[in-house]
Amino acid sequence: MPVPDAPVTGAHRETPEPPGGDRPSRLDPAIAARLRRTPDGLVAAVVRQHDSGEVLMVAWMDDEALHRTLTTGRATYWSRSRREYWVKGATSGHHQYVRSVALDCDGDAVLVSVDQVGAACHTGHRTCFFTELPVSSGEVAS
Amino acid sequence: MPVPDAPVTGAHRETPEPPGGDRPSRLDPAIAARLRRTPDGLVAAVVRQHDSGEVLMVAWMDDEALHRTLTTGRATYWSRSRREYWVKGATSGHHQYVRSVALDCDGDAVLVSVDQVGAACHTGHRTCFFTELPVSSGEVAS
Repeated sequence: MPVPDAPVTGAHRETPEPPGGDRPSRLDPAIAARLRRTPDGLVAAVVRQHDSGEVLMVAWMDDEALHRTLTTGRATYWSRSRREYWVKGATSGHHQYVRSVALDCDGDAVLVSVDQVGAACHTGHRTCFFTELPVSSGEVAS
Repeated sequence: MPVPDAPVTGAHRETPEPPGGDRPSRLDPAIAARLRRTPDGLVAAVVRQHDSGEVLMVAWMDDEALHRTLTTGRATYWSRSRREYWVKGATSGHHQYVRSVALDCDGDAVLVSVDQVGAACHTGHRTCFFTELPVSSGEVAS
């Protein structure tokens, strides 16, 4: 399976990244102060198509990825597996043009409304959420 | 600010919880094997209103919270701050009746479609994403 999108920093791995919260960032300190991050310094980014509202994918952002998303017009994430920044569509052409970004009430997630070019998922599906799980309501919670 | 919803386990804290992935779970092993969790053993749960598609909130699930969500018909989460399970609406009455659940392509997020009673956010807003962040596209990524 191909790598979904090229990392910003290229194929060669740079020096090991410090833990999430320690990477340098230009994010507005007033916004940074509101974030409540995972142990590896990330917030969840929920991405939806701006007009239809379809939920396309979830990715992860550290402070700098959020800064780049807010200021470049292109959705930018932090890859947990590759430990690199990636701009959605850089390789695939499946760009995400940012229309708006909203922070949630407790600061651990952002909702990114985009204009998605082509498929959001690297599998070729429009959305990454194409695997339905079985739901029942016969069992009582214990 | 009131606690948004009562924890399932009541007001008294039980014995300290082990790290996320180590809590006992009845989740189908075939589903568990597909999950890619945060360092504290969680996946992101994106919650949307099943008919309008509105994104209401993001919460967190460990394996057992996902199991309960899939089998009880009521959205159940893991509170990162309180380290307890909570059933949405247990105190507030703002229940989330589960209609469907989808797993994303890399197993680190689920999309939960619910019928939301009243406000999803503990602040009284319909959605937790009521804080718009400023977006510009004038700055070039570096």
